[in-house]
Amino acid sequence: MTRSRLEVLKSLAVENQTKMILLVLDGLGGLPGKDGLTELEKAVTPNLDELAETGETGLLEIVDTGITPGSGPGHLGLFGYDPFEFTIGRGILEALGVGAEVSKGDICARGNFATWNGEDVITDRRAGRIDTETSGELVNKLSDSISEIDGVRVRFYPGLEHRFVVVLSGEGLSENVSDADPQVEGKPMKWSEATAYDGKKTSDVVNTLIREVRKVLSGESRANGCLLRGFSGVPDIPGMRDLYKIHPLAVASYPMYRGLARLVGMDVSEPARDLKDLVEIVEAQWDAHDYFFVHVKYTDSKGEDGDFDAKVDVIEQVDRILPSLLELCPEVIAITGDHSTPAALSAHSWHPSPLVFKSSWVRPDGSKTFGERACAKGSLGIMPASKLMGLMLAHARRLSKYGA
Amino acid sequence: MTRSRLEVLKSLAVENQTKMILLVLDGLGGLPGKDGLTELEKAVTPNLDELAETGETGLLEIVDTGITPGSGPGHLGLFGYDPFEFTIGRGILEALGVGAEVSKGDICARGNFATWNGEDVITDRRAGRIDTETSGELVNKLSDSISEIDGVRVRFYPGLEHRFVVVLSGEGLSENVSDADPQVEGKPMKWSEATAYDGKKTSDVVNTLIREVRKVLSGESRANGCLLRGFSGVPDIPGMRDLYKIHPLAVASYPMYRGLARLVGMDVSEPARDLKDLVEIVEAQWDAHDYFFVHVKYTDSKGEDGDFDAKVDVIEQVDRILPSLLELCPEVIAITGDHSTPAALSAHSWHPSPLVFKSSWVRPDGSKTFGERACAKGSLGIMPASKLMGLMLAHARRLSKYGA
Repeated sequence: MTRSRLEVLKSLAVENQTKMILLVLDGLGGLPGKDGLTELEKAVTPNLDELAETGETGLLEIVDTGITPGSGPGHLGLFGYDPFEFTIGRGILEALGVGAEVSKGDICARGNFATWNGEDVITDRRAGRIDTETSGELVNKLSDSISEIDGVRVRFYPGLEHRFVVVLSGEGLSENVSDADPQVEGKPMKWSEATAYDGKKTSDVVNTLIREVRKVLSGESRANGCLLRGFSGVPDIPGMRDLYKIHPLAVASYPMYRGLARLVGMDVSEPARDLKDLVEIVEAQWDAHDYFFVHVKYTDSKGEDGDFDAKVDVIEQVDRILPSLLELCPEVIAITGDHSTPAALSAHSWHPSPLVFKSSWVRPDGSKTFGERACAKGSLGIMPASKLMGLMLAHARRLSKYGA
Repeated sequence: MTRSRLEVLKSLAVENQTKMILLVLDGLGGLPGKDGLTELEKAVTPNLDELAETGETGLLEIVDTGITPGSGPGHLGLFGYDPFEFTIGRGILEALGVGAEVSKGDICARGNFATWNGEDVITDRRAGRIDTETSGELVNKLSDSISEIDGVRVRFYPGLEHRFVVVLSGEGLSENVSDADPQVEGKPMKWSEATAYDGKKTSDVVNTLIREVRKVLSGESRANGCLLRGFSGVPDIPGMRDLYKIHPLAVASYPMYRGLARLVGMDVSEPARDLKDLVEIVEAQWDAHDYFFVHVKYTDSKGEDGDFDAKVDVIEQVDRILPSLLELCPEVIAITGDHSTPAALSAHSWHPSPLVFKSSWVRPDGSKTFGERACAKGSLGIMPASKLMGLMLAHARRLSKYGA
């Protein structure tokens, strides 16, 4: 029986006083722009370049060759979890994204306001893409009217446009239920069904809930009903504290990343207002924790906008705060992305993520700059992202010898 | 429960209008000749070099480090199948190689004409390596005399020298039978036996067949009997259409590669007469398909001959037809081998295969030429061949995001 890497790491992990920083520039990796340089290569980054020169570089294959990672799998990989083994459902990820509090046993679902006709045919799955404000008012209305179905607590959270999130809390709930969604318009409503023996109670609650929503929204012309899908609960992921014997802190502003960090057992700081604030939070928490997951969102946002120059600018801003982080003298610092978001694609992409890695125990590989092509020649090679965590622990002298 | 890469690819694959070409120069990789350059490095290949300069390069580990691939595993890897998980039996591969038509449920075997003495002792396992012509005449004789054994249809196909192929078709056949072959000379015949409960009928048919062959060949002095081994049927491999949502076409001249392509569900064009014809077939089929597996055999043949210069010449010929393929504007083109066949070894070898890869979404890695040593420094690194298919789909924008 082959032991998994995670089992081995857990058996080897020891505690000590060292500090580690994982600085994630979301969607960092890019593609060449008009002058042949990527966003990162174009950015003027003297501090990152110096780190590359004194440290090691490489490329992280976040999920697997050619696979474009969502934010969930992307971060799970960086935290040491094989993204093909540990998966996060759509509903729970959406719930984390809107900042919902979710506990073990809860079941989350993505909701759409939708238009139903008198014969329960779904004529518009997005209720004419009603705006966020209108949608938020409807969510308030639902929250006021529906708080429990058959002993199961129901919470609603607003999302963008026609979207919202439902969290169910109660005994005996299960994610083994099908979507309550016909998927195509002009078809009769498709009700939720149990997909395993333990799903019956949940599908009953879901279908009753949707009927209640129909009653509450009966006066609405477009958003007179809803669809629910992606039912999922808190995944069964071993916590980082127990696995790695660390006291991790997440410093992130966006709900989804804060929620992801909580899922793997990190403490989560108050949201940082800006990059300067982010550094100050790390400084303030320096003594209380030993592993700092520091998340910068805007590299990804600007990439998604297709705004090459703005992404370059965010990278340069991060470069300017880097000395403050380095002044804390972490034993290990790793800087990378959770996936690439090239402005050329305006979307997440499959390209491996540049990585710069520094500790007292590196073999500097002659890199002069931090960039995708330089990293492709770096001494860390092309590495699965899920191996990074173990490498950080090793350089922090937190892993004992494997075998005698 | 960890999902396999193939399951994940299948769940992410979407159809679109993009076109992909996989150009396989069989046995492409080589070893340094007397001036220190490999066949590929020696060849004058301006078009391949330009592709390397504007694309990405790397090395493909076809099966696994140090493992010399046969043609079957070599191609399966390039088509995205882990060659340790999906295997092809000797008999079926030999049958494909001689152009036999094989259907699900058929069992194929490799045959040798052999010399038997009066006590059923095998005195020569190759019947004195009788020549191909003589052997072909004997196969005709067998075909005329034996077409059925106990309700099972029997077909014979000639091979080289003392070799031939048998295909059995009928109900309830199984590949769970041992070789009918003593393996060494001067030993009594070893008859086939069932190796699992469902093999009894097949071993009975095989042994009866061998006795019938003995009768038909009783007048022969050397080839007065036969041995049969490598019993195998059509393997259970998921088809490429279903897995990847593509419409693949194989453009290959040799029966084995055509048969391999059929096994994984590709359409197969008429055989190309030469390299020019090969390009014309791709052009003619351009609208009807989206994935083109284009196979060039002679790099391997010349390598097997130990003819360094002739292999260089074939590579240069392929370079000259490359512009015609590129004029079709495929979204993705990958050029590599299914294994190395260095002239220095006159045989397949374990050395990784050079790969050049081009799409609109590459990060050109500074390669100036297409050659083994340049590829070893390429940004794709050393990659399992079975990951290439997913990378092609990614660059063709045919994979949706993994997780949210």
